[in-house]
Amino acid sequence: MIICVECLMIDARCRHEIAGVVTEVGKNVAKFKAGDKVGVGCMVNSCQSCENCNQGFENNCSGIIFTYNSVDRDGTVTYGGYSSMVVVHERFVVRFPEAMPLDKGAPLLCAGITVYSPMKYHGLNVPGKHVGVLGLGGLGHVAVKFGKAFGMKVTVISSSPGKRQEAIERLGADAFVVSKNAEEMQAAFGTMDGIINTVSANIPVAPLLGLLKPNGKMILVGLPEKPLEIPPFALVAGNKTLAGSNIGGIADTQEMIDFAAKHGVTADIEVIGADYVNAAMERLAKADVRYRFVIDIGNTLQAMDATE
Amino acid sequence: MIICVECLMIDARCRHEIAGVVTEVGKNVAKFKAGDKVGVGCMVNSCQSCENCNQGFENNCSGIIFTYNSVDRDGTVTYGGYSSMVVVHERFVVRFPEAMPLDKGAPLLCAGITVYSPMKYHGLNVPGKHVGVLGLGGLGHVAVKFGKAFGMKVTVISSSPGKRQEAIERLGADAFVVSKNAEEMQAAFGTMDGIINTVSANIPVAPLLGLLKPNGKMILVGLPEKPLEIPPFALVAGNKTLAGSNIGGIADTQEMIDFAAKHGVTADIEVIGADYVNAAMERLAKADVRYRFVIDIGNTLQAMDATE
Repeated sequence: MIICVECLMIDARCRHEIAGVVTEVGKNVAKFKAGDKVGVGCMVNSCQSCENCNQGFENNCSGIIFTYNSVDRDGTVTYGGYSSMVVVHERFVVRFPEAMPLDKGAPLLCAGITVYSPMKYHGLNVPGKHVGVLGLGGLGHVAVKFGKAFGMKVTVISSSPGKRQEAIERLGADAFVVSKNAEEMQAAFGTMDGIINTVSANIPVAPLLGLLKPNGKMILVGLPEKPLEIPPFALVAGNKTLAGSNIGGIADTQEMIDFAAKHGVTADIEVIGADYVNAAMERLAKADVRYRFVIDIGNTLQAMDATE
Repeated sequence: MIICVECLMIDARCRHEIAGVVTEVGKNVAKFKAGDKVGVGCMVNSCQSCENCNQGFENNCSGIIFTYNSVDRDGTVTYGGYSSMVVVHERFVVRFPEAMPLDKGAPLLCAGITVYSPMKYHGLNVPGKHVGVLGLGGLGHVAVKFGKAFGMKVTVISSSPGKRQEAIERLGADAFVVSKNAEEMQAAFGTMDGIINTVSANIPVAPLLGLLKPNGKMILVGLPEKPLEIPPFALVAGNKTLAGSNIGGIADTQEMIDFAAKHGVTADIEVIGADYVNAAMERLAKADVRYRFVIDIGNTLQAMDATE
């Protein structure tokens, strides 16, 4: 039940947000046929039989095989999407709707599901509710778009006052709060049903929990290096929640990409050739991209191979 | 809509877990009549009109008036239950079922609702699920009883190996894990749907999060002085939740006391006279009580008043 996918587009940073077209399918493959537009996300295998897998949460399987740098169950090492072709079990392939472009859709296979899944499971997909998006980068800008697509009030919270115009005018957020501005933080105090925390820097979390209403939830999808310092009272008063979330299952990834196609949600990207990868990595280190580099493998990697 | 309650039993530690009998009701009181067995918990008033109050979560109202040491809306100070009588708005009074004794029921008005409410709202009241109870004291021993009444598997987690027999043989827990025993912790790794964390000491929380299954939830009901240190990965991997919980609303308190009466859940107490309060406070400081002192106000405070 494996299929071969020609890698046409891949997120440059993650090596595991792959979009392409099916070239060949094994004889037991039922879901796909040659020519289908598909995507492969962060996982290419799991035990497929535990409670987590059976409930559609392969992302929580202790036998998860990541698309990049894992040892698969047959002993081979996974190398991700920096290649012209990838062979994957059909369970771990999602169908791209016709309306979803390969390039702008590829980053949704990680960034999209990473924010969509917790928004779904923590009730932050309800029209009229108020979600904060902490950090405006690869994950944050997609969270803003999903929040608006869900019909929510969306407030971007950022330490960079310079991102206000981008957040409101270009991405459509309803409001913008500078986290270092005491007056703006006070005005937003206790107003949010949830916060998607996409920040991977070590910032004080307690003042941000103050932005939540009673029963509000902050969802961690970033991974700061140091432990967060959480005063217990900041959670106990008002029955607040701090939850982590790690990508999402395959069924939810398919649901996410279908929802995104229907509502015109895509990632903002800069398409580059394979020969630009080193320069892109340097720019990534400086956060100099809005918001993801996508490598056009189809047009460049094979050309480079031919030249060598 | 106020009622007068003769204070007969009160938890010695909290001054706000009051059980007694109604002596008189205002003319607009519909829910109670003289002679009813009732209880008054941690709150005696709130704004009664905000979104939280309207949803039954007076505990989350920003205008909450605590039973002890709050300034009520009429400007008077609340003095709790160290008295022969208390006058309370009927909204903040719960009915004691016939089967619920005043003395063993009084501590449920705080300790009981504090663990019952998060068990209800975080899905830790489902037969067959596995709940850990961290810390075996006033809150913990009631959490064990509710867990068993819900039909769950209950594991007590404690730093004191000496509490094993008490937990299993007397309180009916299914298992006991010594948190400092690496072997026992490893055996329990990833097995729990949730943990009710009743500990108010500053202990490392990250290893305890490891006891949770994917999607597992740790609920804080204790209040350690220092911030908890939470490595983000301990929540993100496995989509885990750390949530705070603060008593519960009045409707839930009534539901809790009804459920407790039906299932024979009461607090383990030592009944004392009002003249023993100072000695009790000294023993409380040494955690020398299983698990709550309850003052028999009816038989002793009034007698002392008469003597003076």
